Amino acid sequence: MKPQVLKGFRDYAPEEMMARQLMLDKVRAVFESFGYMPLHTPALEYSEILLGKYGDEGEKLLYRFLDNGGRDVALRYDLTVPLARFVGMNPTMRWPFRRYQIAPVWRAERPQRGRFREFYQCDADLIGIDSPQADAECILIDCGVMAALEMEEFTIQINHRGYLDGLLEAQGIGPTQVVPVMRVLDKVDKVSRDSMREMLAQLGLGSGQVDVLAALGDITGDHAARLRGGLELAAGSDKARLAVERLEQVLALVEASAADAPVQFAPSVARGLDYYTGIVYETFLPARYGVGSVMSGGRYNNLLGSMANREIPAVGISLGIDRLLSALASSEGGQTATVTRVMVCTMAGNEIDAARVAARLRQELPAGGNGVELYPTDDKIKKQFDYANKRGIGFVVMVGAEEAAQKKVALKNFETGEQVVVSEDELATRIIGSQPA
Amino acid sequence: MKPQVLKGFRDYAPEEMMARQLMLDKVRAVFESFGYMPLHTPALEYSEILLGKYGDEGEKLLYRFLDNGGRDVALRYDLTVPLARFVGMNPTMRWPFRRYQIAPVWRAERPQRGRFREFYQCDADLIGIDSPQADAECILIDCGVMAALEMEEFTIQINHRGYLDGLLEAQGIGPTQVVPVMRVLDKVDKVSRDSMREMLAQLGLGSGQVDVLAALGDITGDHAARLRGGLELAAGSDKARLAVERLEQVLALVEASAADAPVQFAPSVARGLDYYTGIVYETFLPARYGVGSVMSGGRYNNLLGSMANREIPAVGISLGIDRLLSALASSEGGQTATVTRVMVCTMAGNEIDAARVAARLRQELPAGGNGVELYPTDDKIKKQFDYANKRGIGFVVMVGAEEAAQKKVALKNFETGEQVVVSEDELATRIIGSQPA
Repeated sequence: MKPQVLKGFRDYAPEEMMARQLMLDKVRAVFESFGYMPLHTPALEYSEILLGKYGDEGEKLLYRFLDNGGRDVALRYDLTVPLARFVGMNPTMRWPFRRYQIAPVWRAERPQRGRFREFYQCDADLIGIDSPQADAECILIDCGVMAALEMEEFTIQINHRGYLDGLLEAQGIGPTQVVPVMRVLDKVDKVSRDSMREMLAQLGLGSGQVDVLAALGDITGDHAARLRGGLELAAGSDKARLAVERLEQVLALVEASAADAPVQFAPSVARGLDYYTGIVYETFLPARYGVGSVMSGGRYNNLLGSMANREIPAVGISLGIDRLLSALASSEGGQTATVTRVMVCTMAGNEIDAARVAARLRQELPAGGNGVELYPTDDKIKKQFDYANKRGIGFVVMVGAEEAAQKKVALKNFETGEQVVVSEDELATRIIGSQPA
Repeated sequence: MKPQVLKGFRDYAPEEMMARQLMLDKVRAVFESFGYMPLHTPALEYSEILLGKYGDEGEKLLYRFLDNGGRDVALRYDLTVPLARFVGMNPTMRWPFRRYQIAPVWRAERPQRGRFREFYQCDADLIGIDSPQADAECILIDCGVMAALEMEEFTIQINHRGYLDGLLEAQGIGPTQVVPVMRVLDKVDKVSRDSMREMLAQLGLGSGQVDVLAALGDITGDHAARLRGGLELAAGSDKARLAVERLEQVLALVEASAADAPVQFAPSVARGLDYYTGIVYETFLPARYGVGSVMSGGRYNNLLGSMANREIPAVGISLGIDRLLSALASSEGGQTATVTRVMVCTMAGNEIDAARVAARLRQELPAGGNGVELYPTDDKIKKQFDYANKRGIGFVVMVGAEEAAQKKVALKNFETGEQVVVSEDELATRIIGSQPA
C-alpha cells in the first residue's frame, strides 16, 4: 500500500502549520475584539439542510453519501448554512447575535493551483440587526484582520445590491438579463472597456444601455464624488438612491472609526447575487500576490429566516485563509518557525540531571515561543547540535557531570556561537535576557 | 424542512465553545512548551490507508463512502494512522520528530451520554526514538496538561506491555488466552476480587494461575515496593524483568523532573493490546467525575514502520477533551463566559460619536478578553442594558450629545452599579484599572 493523500487534499507540515496557526490566532483575536463569540457546528449535516442553497453547480461539489444508518448526509460546504440551521434550532436567541467560526469546509472542485477540496473559512456574522452600524462593523473587522496580518496595502471595494438592481431597472434591463449583466460588470477591473462594451452588446443591450453601464468604470474621486457619480448614472431610481444613502451612512461610520480605512465605493462589484440583499464587499491585495478577493461578504437578510420561520437580517464577512497563505508563501517565501527556544542535550550518565534542568527551564521561562526540548537519547553531541541547528533552535544547554555537581551548565547561543558556563539558578534569566535567535 | 443536527453530533453554542477553546489553547501551550509542532492532515483519507488498523469492530465505525470521482474514501478515525501515512510519505524526516495535532475524528458509534460521533483528539507523539526519556516525556506532558487544566487530583497509572506479556508467559498462559485475560485484568479497579477470580477461572485458568493474577491487585506501596512486588510475581521472566527495569528508569526521570507527579506502577493496566509494544499509561480523575481515563497512550514501535518500510519507534499521549469537558460540566456546572469587556451604546443622533469611541477603546485596551461591542442600532437604552447584562458584559459606555461635545462619556460598571462621567482620554485607563466584572 502506497501512502498518499487524496487528490485536492494536502497535509500542512509543522513549519507551514505554524505560520497558518499564527494567522488563525490573529484572525480570532480580531473577531473577539469586536465581541464575536465562537460557535462550533459538526462537519456532517443532513443533506436536506444543505440542498437548494448553493445552486446546481455548487450542489454537484457536495461530498454527499449515505451513512451506516442509511441517512443522506453531506460534509459542510460553507459555514453560513450550518449557522442558519443553528439559528433555526434556537428560536429564543436574542439579537444582536455575533458569532465567528473558523473551520474547514469541503468542496469537490477540480483541483488547481491554490485551490483545495478541503479549506478553512473564517467567518464572522452579526445576526438579527439591519443597520448601517452592523454593515460598517464588517468593514472594520476586515481592516482589523488585514492590519493584524500585516498586509500593508489592500483595498476594500464596497457596493450595495440595491444600487445595481436599481440601476438596471432604471435602464429597463429585465430580470432575466440581470445575472448575466452583473457577471460582465464584475469583470470591470479585468478586461478592457472595449471588450466590456462588446460583451454587454452580445447580451442584447442597446448602445444607450451599454454607455451607461460602461460608465460605471469611469467613476472616480473621493467617497462623495463616487457616490454622486453613481447616483447620477442611476438617476430616477429610488432603490438606487436608498442604497447610496445607506452606503453614505456606512462610509461615515467607517471613517469615524478608522480614518485611514482603504475603502471605496465600487459600483460594479456584484458578487453572490442570489444570496445578498444589501451591502457587499471584497478585499483586494496588490496585483503581485496574484489572487482575487481574500476577504469578502455582505448583507443577507433572507437566508436565516428560511430555516426559522421569521425574518432574520444578517451581515457577515469571510476570510479565505488558504488562499491568502498560498499567496503570501509564493510571493515572500517560507521561513523556519519553531516553538522551541532551548534544547537540553542528553549525555550518557547524566540523563537525570539533563531531565531536571529541562523541567526547571520549562517552569521558569515565560509561556509562548519558549518551548524547551530535552534531546531524548544520548546520541553523539554533534548529531544533537545538528538537529538543533536544522530545527532553528536558538540555545543549547549541556549538563556535564562535573558542571552538574556544582549546579552549573554550559549554555550555547546558536546565533552568536558564544558559549558560557552559568549556574542553574541564572540559566533562565540568561536566556530571557539574550536576543531571540 | 426541520432544522436538526445528525444523531450523535452536536453544536457547541458560544458559551460552551469558549470553555472548550480555552482548554484547547492551554493544551496546545503545554504541547508547544515541550517543543511539539502542529501538523495538519486532511479529514478524508483513502479508505485503504485506514483499513486493517482498528480491528473489525473499529472498521465498522468508519464513515466510508465513494466520492464523486469513485474513490473509496473515509473520514479519519483517529490522528495516529494519518500520522503514520504522513511519516510514510516523508522518508527523509529526521528524528526526533515531535508533532501534535488537535482535530476532530469521526466514529459511527452508538450515541450515549458523553460519547459523540464527532469528537476532538489532542495527540502529542515523539517519533523516531525509543528511550526512557521519550517515555518519561509523555508522562510529563500528561502532568503538564492536568496542571494547566487545573485538575488538582488525578492519578497516572503506568505499566509496560512487556511486563504483562512476560507474566502471562511465565504462568504458561498461551497466546490465544492473552487478550481475554488482559481484558479481565483491566477491570481490577472496577470489580471485586472474587468476581475477578471467577472471571479468570471461567477463561479456563487453573487456581495457581488465578492466585498469581489476582495478586496483581495487592501490589501497593511506593515506586520501589510496587516494582519489586511486580517483579516477584513474574519471577523467572526476562521479558518482565526488562520491562520493570525500563519502568524504573522512566519513573526516575519523571521524579527528577516533577517530584510530585502522581504516577504509579499499575501492573494490571493493559489498554490497546494490538497496538502498544512498551510503556502504556492512563489518567484517572476522582470518581465523582464519573469518567474513565481522560488522557492515555503508550509506546507503539511497529505501526509507523508498516507504512514506511523501515523501523520507526514512537510514543504518544492523547487527551479526550470532549469526555473531560462533559465530566467537568456535569460536576461543576457552567458559567457565563464572554469575550466582551465593554459595550458602547448607540443613541439616535449620536451614532458617529459612539462608533468613534468604540473604535478608540478597541485600540487602547490590551488584547485578550477585552472585546468592545458597539450596540448596532438605537434600541431603547433599557433593551441595550438588558442585552449587556444577559451577555455578562462588565462595562457599558454611553456617549450622549452633550458629553460628546466635551469629549466625555458616561461609564457604567455593571458589577458595582457605579456610573461616572469620564473624559474619552481616560476611559480605557479607567476600565483597565477596575476589577474585571
